[in-house]
Amino acid sequence: MQELHFAVPMAGAILCTFNTRHDSTMIATLLTHSETKILFVDHQFLHTALAALNLLKPPHTKPPLIVTITYEGTPPQSELNTNAYHQYESLIEGGVSGFNVVRPTDEWDPISLNYTSGTTSRPKGVVYSHRGAYLNSIATVFMHGMGARTTYLWTVPMFHCNGWCVTWGLAAIGGTNICIRRCDPKDIFDNIDLHKVTHMGGAPTVLNMIVNSPVTERKPLPHKVEIMTGGAPPPPLILSKMEELGFGVSHLYGLTETYGPGTLCLWKPEWDSLPTEERLKLKTRQGVRHLGLDSVDVKDPITMESVECDGKAMGEVMFRGNTVMSGYLKDTKATEEAFAGGWFRSGDLAVKHPDGYIEVKDRSKDIIISGGENISTVEVETVIYSHPAVLEVAVVARPDNHWGQTPCAFVKLKDGFSVDGQEIIDYCRNRMPRYMAPKTVIFEDLPRTSTGKVQKFLLREKAKALGSIS
Amino acid sequence: MQELHFAVPMAGAILCTFNTRHDSTMIATLLTHSETKILFVDHQFLHTALAALNLLKPPHTKPPLIVTITYEGTPPQSELNTNAYHQYESLIEGGVSGFNVVRPTDEWDPISLNYTSGTTSRPKGVVYSHRGAYLNSIATVFMHGMGARTTYLWTVPMFHCNGWCVTWGLAAIGGTNICIRRCDPKDIFDNIDLHKVTHMGGAPTVLNMIVNSPVTERKPLPHKVEIMTGGAPPPPLILSKMEELGFGVSHLYGLTETYGPGTLCLWKPEWDSLPTEERLKLKTRQGVRHLGLDSVDVKDPITMESVECDGKAMGEVMFRGNTVMSGYLKDTKATEEAFAGGWFRSGDLAVKHPDGYIEVKDRSKDIIISGGENISTVEVETVIYSHPAVLEVAVVARPDNHWGQTPCAFVKLKDGFSVDGQEIIDYCRNRMPRYMAPKTVIFEDLPRTSTGKVQKFLLREKAKALGSIS
Repeated sequence: MQELHFAVPMAGAILCTFNTRHDSTMIATLLTHSETKILFVDHQFLHTALAALNLLKPPHTKPPLIVTITYEGTPPQSELNTNAYHQYESLIEGGVSGFNVVRPTDEWDPISLNYTSGTTSRPKGVVYSHRGAYLNSIATVFMHGMGARTTYLWTVPMFHCNGWCVTWGLAAIGGTNICIRRCDPKDIFDNIDLHKVTHMGGAPTVLNMIVNSPVTERKPLPHKVEIMTGGAPPPPLILSKMEELGFGVSHLYGLTETYGPGTLCLWKPEWDSLPTEERLKLKTRQGVRHLGLDSVDVKDPITMESVECDGKAMGEVMFRGNTVMSGYLKDTKATEEAFAGGWFRSGDLAVKHPDGYIEVKDRSKDIIISGGENISTVEVETVIYSHPAVLEVAVVARPDNHWGQTPCAFVKLKDGFSVDGQEIIDYCRNRMPRYMAPKTVIFEDLPRTSTGKVQKFLLREKAKALGSIS
Repeated sequence: MQELHFAVPMAGAILCTFNTRHDSTMIATLLTHSETKILFVDHQFLHTALAALNLLKPPHTKPPLIVTITYEGTPPQSELNTNAYHQYESLIEGGVSGFNVVRPTDEWDPISLNYTSGTTSRPKGVVYSHRGAYLNSIATVFMHGMGARTTYLWTVPMFHCNGWCVTWGLAAIGGTNICIRRCDPKDIFDNIDLHKVTHMGGAPTVLNMIVNSPVTERKPLPHKVEIMTGGAPPPPLILSKMEELGFGVSHLYGLTETYGPGTLCLWKPEWDSLPTEERLKLKTRQGVRHLGLDSVDVKDPITMESVECDGKAMGEVMFRGNTVMSGYLKDTKATEEAFAGGWFRSGDLAVKHPDGYIEVKDRSKDIIISGGENISTVEVETVIYSHPAVLEVAVVARPDNHWGQTPCAFVKLKDGFSVDGQEIIDYCRNRMPRYMAPKTVIFEDLPRTSTGKVQKFLLREKAKALGSIS
């Protein structure tokens, strides 16, 4: 996939990478929607791909050409004969070394198509342009603080927001890519040690996995390893434990529609000497726009007025610039809605602090409104995360006859720990305004998307099914 | 000047910085040619500026508005009353904080006008665009390997190729600018020590000055200081001495027309372990294009064919891309000549090595043709520089009845040394093909332009005046 990030655009084609956890139904939907001409398939996913081809219906009457990619050490799915298809390595060997790169005729031409996660019936294909990708690749180098001798460990999937354009950013500085087949703590520590990794990325889930890994799977870091986290605000406790392990954590924020990270919590040297708690609190903020983006602002979604920089007034995070998507493929209506008012509307609710740094409080659909008060589920989750028995938590609204809604916490405990719901509730009441504390606590595994995001809509349905608190 | 790099473009105006060593006649010529509207003058140059205003003739009937800049600790020229003019600091104090930045309507709009050095009767005003400046600023950060905590010492004048766009590059990474009034070894070492400078630039003349400075003026470096050199190939002996002092030297190459550096001798980790002599030889090569430039090539100036990558075939260095000038102001003819064939012609003669790195052998007008053989004056100078008694050297052609031309070396010796011409000639004959060794050696100070470049045309005139060798 790393090679195809270069080969496909250089052939004048458009890169469209699929999430490897999609099932054949989803793949079939996306093949049709994207009008894929050539499908490169790792042999471990050939079964899924072939099942998808069987599901293809008109107008996608011509199925894509299949090219299989095989690796030594990873056995092909036994029942399939990969020799029946084009072989990636054979194609490469037969390539022409003097091939003329096909340049885009216009720098706004599309370079890649990225289907957002969480989509089911209506695929949302986010289009990136050559121009945006160039600027975002450069911005990636600045954001990550990468230099000429960077070795980057891929834990962020390259199919996720086009790999944040880091494939191209690394090429711009001549960095080294380390790709791994699985992303578990042992593989991460082993590869950091083996390749002297300097930089990596990872959602808070990955950070959580690292800090909660068995000591036997860890290895001492060869030097400070810079890790960029995004996708959800990193809980302070996890940040703190990552630092203890020797990682330098940077916090990025964005969406597929902003080519991945659009802001970063740009660290100021004078913050180094602050007390730990204050430092970690600053680091959970989403920060300021990166160099390649024109503007990020927090605005009233109705009046489009900027909110005050007081850390209190809430509004919607909006983006504008060359590294914001060109639009959703074949979906003018969704594109127009997303850009209503001339800015891209993120759907995230945030405040602006006096120093201009933004802090996302919640997804607009996740916010809980209880007795007329907005409750940020992120804030409640942060407190619950700090409880020593808690491994993971997600908070959603539960209907409440009196308050309208009250917080309901889904909690997964660490192995060997046992607490009851009342203890979690009491723990919260001692650390936040009473109205913000959950009234319901449910212990279970959290449902996640293939990119590791908690599927809050499933939890909201569960909370709703519990019935109203009366 | 650093502030004006931002203020002027943000006001929608075009920045045109003058060399501080120009005399009033040159200033008057440039004021007229550039149609300057506002002239910001450091009070130390007010005398020259006022004299220039007195020389202004139609069509420049309306003299520019004068704004004087005063500094504590630098007395104004006594006979002048700076209060008769607008004061820079007062204007700043009266500024509007909510000023709306005037954005260019088109990113190809001009951002700055840069008069090339060495110009006399016909000013050549090189126009830079907003787009080119953005890309070059970014490229500067990559080329210099600058990161978030960079402290840059300005020894490269900001009026020279728009300060290589480093003013903007530093802003992009949030770096620190250290500006000094004088550029002598003591000031350089003192400021590196005081401000913990991490990066700086400097022509080989500056490097020469540093390595030949009295030990009493030096201070130990607080860490490795990265210094970018360009304007002329750095002699290996000077590179070696700079490294001994603790500097990391990178070699850049370009022209005013390529926004300053267009190529860099990008260093490969595997070269670190090579023998010193080989390492320094590699470092004197001009290298490969930077990230913001589309292409650099060495071509036959007639056929426009690329020369072979054999380190031998000579051609003209040519550039193409967004960081090549838009053109010469009010000089369509010179612009068309410069871009004849679709590439910007540098006037420099070079070879391409098998690894694609270019090596400039000479300016096309500097090359010596002796008995039908091309002699690179740079190569002869490099050998003479390695003589322990030599401080500075420049080689030009002297007419020769038999050979057409033969090399003539102008040499400045270090204090306290004394050698004769024959010793220099013998020294060369032992180290290069006999035909390349100078036949004439003259000991004297070298004439330089205000940017430190040796004025070879003056030396050529002197060599010519000596008459032909018969």
